[in-house]
Amino acid sequence: MQVTDAHKILTEIKTKKPLIHHITNWVTIYDCANITRAFGALPVMAHAIEEVEEMTGIASALVLNIGTLTPEVVDSMIVAGKAANKKGIPVVLDAVGVGATKLRTDSALRIINEVHVDVIKGNSAEVGVLAGAEAEVRGVEAMSLRGNPVEIAKSLAKKTKSVVAMTGKKDIITDGKKTYLCDNGDAMMGSIVGTGCMAASVIGAFCAVEKDYAKAAASALACFGIAGELAAKKAKGPGTFKEQFYDEAYSLDEKKITSMTKVSEA
Amino acid sequence: MQVTDAHKILTEIKTKKPLIHHITNWVTIYDCANITRAFGALPVMAHAIEEVEEMTGIASALVLNIGTLTPEVVDSMIVAGKAANKKGIPVVLDAVGVGATKLRTDSALRIINEVHVDVIKGNSAEVGVLAGAEAEVRGVEAMSLRGNPVEIAKSLAKKTKSVVAMTGKKDIITDGKKTYLCDNGDAMMGSIVGTGCMAASVIGAFCAVEKDYAKAAASALACFGIAGELAAKKAKGPGTFKEQFYDEAYSLDEKKITSMTKVSEA
Amino acid sequence: MQVTDAHKILTEIKTKKPLIHHITNWVTIYDCANITRAFGALPVMAHAIEEVEEMTGIASALVLNIGTLTPEVVDSMIVAGKAANKKGIPVVLDAVGVGATKLRTDSALRIINEVHVDVIKGNSAEVGVLAGAEAEVRGVEAMSLRGNPVEIAKSLAKKTKSVVAMTGKKDIITDGKKTYLCDNGDAMMGSIVGTGCMAASVIGAFCAVEKDYAKAAASALACFGIAGELAAKKAKGPGTFKEQFYDEAYSLDEKKITSMTKVSEA
Repeated sequence: MQVTDAHKILTEIKTKKPLIHHITNWVTIYDCANITRAFGALPVMAHAIEEVEEMTGIASALVLNIGTLTPEVVDSMIVAGKAANKKGIPVVLDAVGVGATKLRTDSALRIINEVHVDVIKGNSAEVGVLAGAEAEVRGVEAMSLRGNPVEIAKSLAKKTKSVVAMTGKKDIITDGKKTYLCDNGDAMMGSIVGTGCMAASVIGAFCAVEKDYAKAAASALACFGIAGELAAKKAKGPGTFKEQFYDEAYSLDEKKITSMTKVSEA
Repeated sequence: MQVTDAHKILTEIKTKKPLIHHITNWVTIYDCANITRAFGALPVMAHAIEEVEEMTGIASALVLNIGTLTPEVVDSMIVAGKAANKKGIPVVLDAVGVGATKLRTDSALRIINEVHVDVIKGNSAEVGVLAGAEAEVRGVEAMSLRGNPVEIAKSLAKKTKSVVAMTGKKDIITDGKKTYLCDNGDAMMGSIVGTGCMAASVIGAFCAVEKDYAKAAASALACFGIAGELAAKKAKGPGTFKEQFYDEAYSLDEKKITSMTKVSEA
Repeated sequence: MQVTDAHKILTEIKTKKPLIHHITNWVTIYDCANITRAFGALPVMAHAIEEVEEMTGIASALVLNIGTLTPEVVDSMIVAGKAANKKGIPVVLDAVGVGATKLRTDSALRIINEVHVDVIKGNSAEVGVLAGAEAEVRGVEAMSLRGNPVEIAKSLAKKTKSVVAMTGKKDIITDGKKTYLCDNGDAMMGSIVGTGCMAASVIGAFCAVEKDYAKAAASALACFGIAGELAAKKAKGPGTFKEQFYDEAYSLDEKKITSMTKVSEA
């Protein structure tokens, strides 16, 4: 990936203002909407099964997040996901808490089976569980993963024909063949709730305008991480960090992105 | 409207601390509650059909917002709306996303038919759809409206016997006869999610203490816009803007309101 | 209670990172998660009846909050509460709005009857209603309470064999025998929505690592209040207050806690 690509995609988002339909959780729903807006796209959140097909029909990407799932909301996700597949717009799944409970693991697998998911995003343990590796998830946190993370991500990508974005200290983005490593980000991002969910929204916005989803996801995570690095410099704690994070995400420009992007091919 | 009226109404709110019952969406529910508090009223959010009648019974205004509607929540809105009508307290409807899906349009029309709505709030396209004009809504954003916005707002007001508050670069507030134009606000308000929803909450607080609902809604939008203008001067992006917006809303005083209000009669 | 105890418990939380399972309301769910994180614990929010037993099974404390209850969510709370009782982890109930509607009062009593609640938290009027005293709750605000607050809190504690944490200008924490009064906090905490809910989350985190729940709850409220006092010094309104509050909660240390804790035995 050229380091200038991320900026080009971001400019596309700001020009086209794609609508990103979310069916997401009740904890970070507001932050998912706001970060989508800060990156220049238009968020819409709608989960009623009566309207999700129609809403996906006017959207440019669909982001599914099972953070506070119920079986009814998962049903809506399937309907929306099928509509997205039919229309040919990207579907991003954030596999929040997979491995922590049977409902989460089963629901994620059900979505992956019934819908073609274009990008599966999760922390190392969530991706590990979906890939069939030994992993521990405590609530929504990755506790452990046995095995080589890159190989595990690639195996899931091959099995599902999806791009897999495994987030962590170093993000791994792979379509099973090509693999990007992204080293942007700051430890302060873990001091607030919702950075993982927000990352999935940003991936959705990037995939809405760039059909090479591995490149789009890597670019999204680079830009997201750069905003985090810039914000961390000005933050004195999670309160000021979050405020600065929004300002920095909104103010990313070519110079910052080009000079700070740390993406390499594995 | 006298430019001093807005400040008088705000002082009434701070003195009486009216309870504003919301049945609203899961995206901006927290901001709706907080902005209600910042303007001096007391928010309560309750949507279970088992308690909405009782909660409305102790409230001074009811704010309905269909941003993440389901048919069950709309049922609760109808029950609460009827209780509000019976008690004689104002009902504000924020028609979020009307025109984007059939569920939204049908639900808003159902509420307007079964409940007397005192203030219908929406962006230009949402109001346009309710008025039967040609308009495009993408997700929750106004894309286009064909026709004269003032005339469209007035026609909806006459048809529904409601005050219509059509928000946009210049807000239009009309009861079908008297029409106010409000030119307060700043473009930064569009950089964060939820300003539209928050505006409806503030209208609810103003209507709770001022029975001339057109004047109350115009005053609310003027004060809300002034807070936005003051915040924008100090903001460097959506993060700092939102923080400053709350501070400014909380700190509005007679001098700021009197010198900055830009409301005229059309 | 030794004034150094609060800091010791906080250090335990930061070391053990206990998982705090919440079944809570849709207004302040994000703040409950974030404040849990800021104090060093890991939050998880999950309400589907299909997964709450399993999620509680991997948690170290359970926080129940009826702020936007529905009968279905209360059912989930009962299932989770029984799982917590079986496992021996603390259950905290935030009795939001009890007394305002029959659904709230009945649901809180149902939870207390079917689950052993270790800490019942509420404002003076909410606790008063549960104790059978004369009290008025408007929405989620305490309006009045007839009788001696300490005696009322103690009577509820004795009746339910719970610790009762009655929050207000001066917090009262009692297990029916030993009673702590906590005088930390600042009036600015009432300028934002959700401080009550956040306090319950922090109590959950402290009880997760300290089995003397009265001491844990008093320590939690002291630390929470100290963060509020420190934040208020830097705040110019509710926006800056909230931001600073998170920073201060995150940055509490032995020196601040030891010098500022205002907890006495009644």
